[in-house]
Amino acid sequence: MKEVVAGIDIGGTNTVFGLVDRNGDVLAENRLHTTDYPEIEDFVATLVSAVKKLAESNGDIKLTGIGIGAPNANYYKGTIELAPNLAWKGIVPLAALIRKKIDIPVVVTNDANAAAVGEMIFGGAKGMKDFIVLTLGTGLGSGIVINGRVVYGHTGFAGELGHTTIVPGGRDCGCGRHGCYETYASASGLVKTVLYLMSEMREPSVLRDIPPSELTAKRVSEAALKKDKIALEAIDYTAERIAFGIINAIGFSSPEAIFLFGGLAQAGDLLLKPVREYTDQGVQPIFRGTYKILLSGVPQSNAAILGSAALAWNEFIRESH
Amino acid sequence: MKEVVAGIDIGGTNTVFGLVDRNGDVLAENRLHTTDYPEIEDFVATLVSAVKKLAESNGDIKLTGIGIGAPNANYYKGTIELAPNLAWKGIVPLAALIRKKIDIPVVVTNDANAAAVGEMIFGGAKGMKDFIVLTLGTGLGSGIVINGRVVYGHTGFAGELGHTTIVPGGRDCGCGRHGCYETYASASGLVKTVLYLMSEMREPSVLRDIPPSELTAKRVSEAALKKDKIALEAIDYTAERIAFGIINAIGFSSPEAIFLFGGLAQAGDLLLKPVREYTDQGVQPIFRGTYKILLSGVPQSNAAILGSAALAWNEFIRESH
Repeated sequence: MKEVVAGIDIGGTNTVFGLVDRNGDVLAENRLHTTDYPEIEDFVATLVSAVKKLAESNGDIKLTGIGIGAPNANYYKGTIELAPNLAWKGIVPLAALIRKKIDIPVVVTNDANAAAVGEMIFGGAKGMKDFIVLTLGTGLGSGIVINGRVVYGHTGFAGELGHTTIVPGGRDCGCGRHGCYETYASASGLVKTVLYLMSEMREPSVLRDIPPSELTAKRVSEAALKKDKIALEAIDYTAERIAFGIINAIGFSSPEAIFLFGGLAQAGDLLLKPVREYTDQGVQPIFRGTYKILLSGVPQSNAAILGSAALAWNEFIRESH
Repeated sequence: MKEVVAGIDIGGTNTVFGLVDRNGDVLAENRLHTTDYPEIEDFVATLVSAVKKLAESNGDIKLTGIGIGAPNANYYKGTIELAPNLAWKGIVPLAALIRKKIDIPVVVTNDANAAAVGEMIFGGAKGMKDFIVLTLGTGLGSGIVINGRVVYGHTGFAGELGHTTIVPGGRDCGCGRHGCYETYASASGLVKTVLYLMSEMREPSVLRDIPPSELTAKRVSEAALKKDKIALEAIDYTAERIAFGIINAIGFSSPEAIFLFGGLAQAGDLLLKPVREYTDQGVQPIFRGTYKILLSGVPQSNAAILGSAALAWNEFIRESH
């Protein structure tokens, strides 16, 4: 009988889940529409029964735990708290509700922390004790590992680098504050930077023909590959801002590596190269040459499921010590 | 026979050392001039023999370990590396040199990390697992504790908040970079801010009668207590900058408390109150009400010796688990 865990990633639109073995092989996966379940009890009932069905239809396996990545998740309490992009309001006791339906260990944290554990168990951070994962999507999430453990802090919400201020009085942020790292260092930040540069620069650009509401990081990257000046400048500016946050994070925890993960990281070398250069230029002399900046080593197609599953595997590894 | 450890604080000018018991009582102390010993071997020989003499002249005690706070110290290697304010150049194998003279455990780190361990063992952080100490002296040092352990990072040099950038392109820093936290949030930063404000504001001030080279944080605090407008504004500005760094640190590691330590912290409520207000105003909503900002609970007269001694006690506590 093969032991597996379920990895579940709850997003505002979709929830994806899969069965993952110790080697990081995804044996089966499925999804449901998060928005179809405005009541958390209905969501949990449907999700647990779907996970059980997936396990039963996969032969001789034993489901030993569940790992969940979810927005505004509190690791200590197993709750989702005040998540702006979910229909379930207030404090949702997610782990407890799931445990009522299925009697196996459940671990919950946010998707960026899950990505960090995924990197440690199945990706490029195997054997590393100190590293940081930046998830560069619509926003910027961060999972910070110190001494081999994810940093949850006193509250369970540590690792919110996306909302550290990098430009005092800068861009409006969804959190109600200004100049947050994620307003510059994310897919949406890149798009904002294109608009800003189109206001500052006179160069022609194919991006001037796209309605701003349809502008995406992918289209900016494509334009940059065709040497579009505005697109190239926007990627350079974004790389500088990403590096700024990395430099300060290195001063804080002196990691062995910083991994870039998520949509914007798909730009690959186009982004990675200037991020490395700006970081090397700006970092404190004492840290020069002590860190690596890498793309995530977790297969991006299954990254959300693998990260969540890794959470569960990681808890079991630690329990066995 | 009473067990004690030696706490040693190596500074650019003086080295202070003392014998400290498990309760944080300093049984005896002494000092020597660091600058009298341009050769590290002479320094170590003199220091160890002075520590032994202190132990012998204090009756029935057993010296069980040595904790040392020193600039640019590497905890992992027991070295002092490239310290700009010390005569010993390159990489100094301090712990190894001491161990040649006396066969007891030696632990070395920088003074801010020592202050953090001092806070945890003898000060206001007893029982806390996640907290940060900011040492506001000529510069700004930081000791970060996560999950009950000082963060040393991959290199041993983590916790350099004083050289995280808070104002891109801002004030010149001794590290060769610009806009570092310590150029604003420190005793010397406060003095710089007074000069800046005297350039911007027309208000009369007693501080205008002091040569800038003689201006100190203490004189600014004294003027502020007498309602000097420039001094009050300088403290407010400094408090805002201190808060800025605290807000970002909370986003990183979500500590239970942030302790202010050192010369500038002597300003007490004058500084503490606006630091608390600016932090509460600026922090991410998810962290509101989750942290305390406190003055250090370690007696400041003996803080350096107590912090260094705490390092040694802390290692023994951990070994006994």
